[in-house]
Amino acid sequence: MSQSETFHIVPEDRHNALVHAAYRHRGYDETESAMAARFSAHASRHGIRTHNAIKALHLDHLFGSGSQGCVPGASMDRLPSRFGASEVWNANRKLGQAVAYEAMERCMSLADEYGVGMVSVDNAFHYLWGGGYVMEAAKRGYIAYTNCTAALAEMVPFMGKYPTLGTNPHSWGFPTVAAVGFPVVIDWATSVVAMGRVQQLAREGKPLPPNAAVDEDGNPTTDATKAKHVLPFGAHKGYGLALVNEIVGAFIGGSLPTLRSRWTDDGDKHAPCFFFQVIHPEALSAGAFAGSRSQAENVKAVIEDILGHGNENCILPGQLEAEFAKRCDAAGGLLFSAKEIAAFSELAAECGEKSWMVDDFEVAG
Amino acid sequence: MSQSETFHIVPEDRHNALVHAAYRHRGYDETESAMAARFSAHASRHGIRTHNAIKALHLDHLFGSGSQGCVPGASMDRLPSRFGASEVWNANRKLGQAVAYEAMERCMSLADEYGVGMVSVDNAFHYLWGGGYVMEAAKRGYIAYTNCTAALAEMVPFMGKYPTLGTNPHSWGFPTVAAVGFPVVIDWATSVVAMGRVQQLAREGKPLPPNAAVDEDGNPTTDATKAKHVLPFGAHKGYGLALVNEIVGAFIGGSLPTLRSRWTDDGDKHAPCFFFQVIHPEALSAGAFAGSRSQAENVKAVIEDILGHGNENCILPGQLEAEFAKRCDAAGGLLFSAKEIAAFSELAAECGEKSWMVDDFEVAG
Repeated sequence: MSQSETFHIVPEDRHNALVHAAYRHRGYDETESAMAARFSAHASRHGIRTHNAIKALHLDHLFGSGSQGCVPGASMDRLPSRFGASEVWNANRKLGQAVAYEAMERCMSLADEYGVGMVSVDNAFHYLWGGGYVMEAAKRGYIAYTNCTAALAEMVPFMGKYPTLGTNPHSWGFPTVAAVGFPVVIDWATSVVAMGRVQQLAREGKPLPPNAAVDEDGNPTTDATKAKHVLPFGAHKGYGLALVNEIVGAFIGGSLPTLRSRWTDDGDKHAPCFFFQVIHPEALSAGAFAGSRSQAENVKAVIEDILGHGNENCILPGQLEAEFAKRCDAAGGLLFSAKEIAAFSELAAECGEKSWMVDDFEVAG
Repeated sequence: MSQSETFHIVPEDRHNALVHAAYRHRGYDETESAMAARFSAHASRHGIRTHNAIKALHLDHLFGSGSQGCVPGASMDRLPSRFGASEVWNANRKLGQAVAYEAMERCMSLADEYGVGMVSVDNAFHYLWGGGYVMEAAKRGYIAYTNCTAALAEMVPFMGKYPTLGTNPHSWGFPTVAAVGFPVVIDWATSVVAMGRVQQLAREGKPLPPNAAVDEDGNPTTDATKAKHVLPFGAHKGYGLALVNEIVGAFIGGSLPTLRSRWTDDGDKHAPCFFFQVIHPEALSAGAFAGSRSQAENVKAVIEDILGHGNENCILPGQLEAEFAKRCDAAGGLLFSAKEIAAFSELAAECGEKSWMVDDFEVAG
């Protein structure tokens, strides 16, 4: 998201048409492909380059339709439940983006009725960027939360040696558009750094921060070339947050973290789980805000207090994403680097679509 | 919780009688005093020395009945709600422990019916140790969560200068007694260290860890004698977690964090808010666990996988607390240091009860 990097403006229609075609080519149906394109555009518009269409299709190759993790065109089963505000779905390894969008919609409907609604999903496939789903729900006025178990166990528990935890975030979204102009979205990995970042630092010959990774013997190292597995941020605290995801997944139906995405004919379960929850903000309100403020005005006043008193340089979670979306809006399209456009061309070649050339796209100002 | 420290065994009845009398002396009614005694015993049994009866009554003096933060004998109002699974209460500054116990009970009933239940509380007073409430619910078989806003804003936002955030935890409890013998309870401050720890290190002439505190100008310092305010753990990550508490409080009805517990006749609101949520574990279950495991067996298998493969030295959140409770059970009472017993004697003097002498109590083995 560096301001100095050169970006090229890709009209969203053109982006979505290629992503849609790439998913269709991999066997996904019309709706799945449309959801995948919509979500990739949403991620790119908010500067989430780690989970744009290029990464989504790469993950699909590694863990999804290219492996056994995702089944194009799968139908979900909505399981019977005796609980009004809570549903459980068996995704049967349907595309994560399609499942997540639908689950979040259902949570919003349940929250309208019960104040809170939740959907748990077994046999899921990677939904890419949890922050994206809670951001959309927050823009529509809801408090939203999601967590999920990761495709791979890459993180070593606090005081441990071997990776048995995912690095997946907890994602919270708050309806703060009226208060601050964008939804506050809290969404970060439970590791100090991602494995992708470790590999990047190794290539660049740079060290890791302390307590970020261990070597193959499970000993902490700052040598990126020797780092094999990552460590939780905040020692026991990030470890606790990672455990929440794994334990919730275990209650839903996920099997052992170290088996995840490692498909063999062992009759075990290898897919992640999703958990979604939405709260209607009126279901929280005691209706008596200081200074006769409305609920939204109260949230605004509280955030202004937090960011006042000399804290004016602080940023809110979700702010950088909102600023990137403004740049995209001003440019009239999604912003990609020349390298990213080359990667889209490879996707175009894969599915027989017209190649993207850097010169096709204006440079963003 | 050091094993080498000398502890004296105080029978729980005697502890509870004194705590009850102390609360009665401060004007609290029978039920409030009983809840306060029960909660203090619960904290002490689990080794939570930062929130035992001594601290509870000290906080009551500073912020509660000794200030305007808590109103002994207050009645709560249950506000009308159109949402089935969600309630909002106006605590009218009733004692936090009594409100929290009742709210958690209500959440469990709602979860029995809806799969998930939540209670939000406006005009609350300090409930001491969120982990204690979720631990009790988890022992009864539920997944429980709570957060609240703090009595004071002691923490500086990431990249900020001035304390506008509380350090209060998010507390999660999981019903894992069948899986591991005790409930997994995740409950830690959002700061690197507590202000009490800063003061202790200053007295001992020891340095702070890096990025744990700032001086009066808002600059990071490791000099405990110059540290004025604490910083979030994990930089922007702990900051995000602290923001969740403040924003949820703002949706409920809390006013500005920097006004909290600073009672003046300004017509503003100065009390914290509570948020409680309980999930019925069956409301998460897809009912199809690998190897025909039950849900509890599946949770056990997942946790064993996480703590296997060389991770056998890792501990689970809640494990130290469970081990301390075993020591208390073996000793047949609550365990207090000689200094703590002296502090109880001061409380006894305050309310005209018989003093505690160290020699009254056996030394724990």
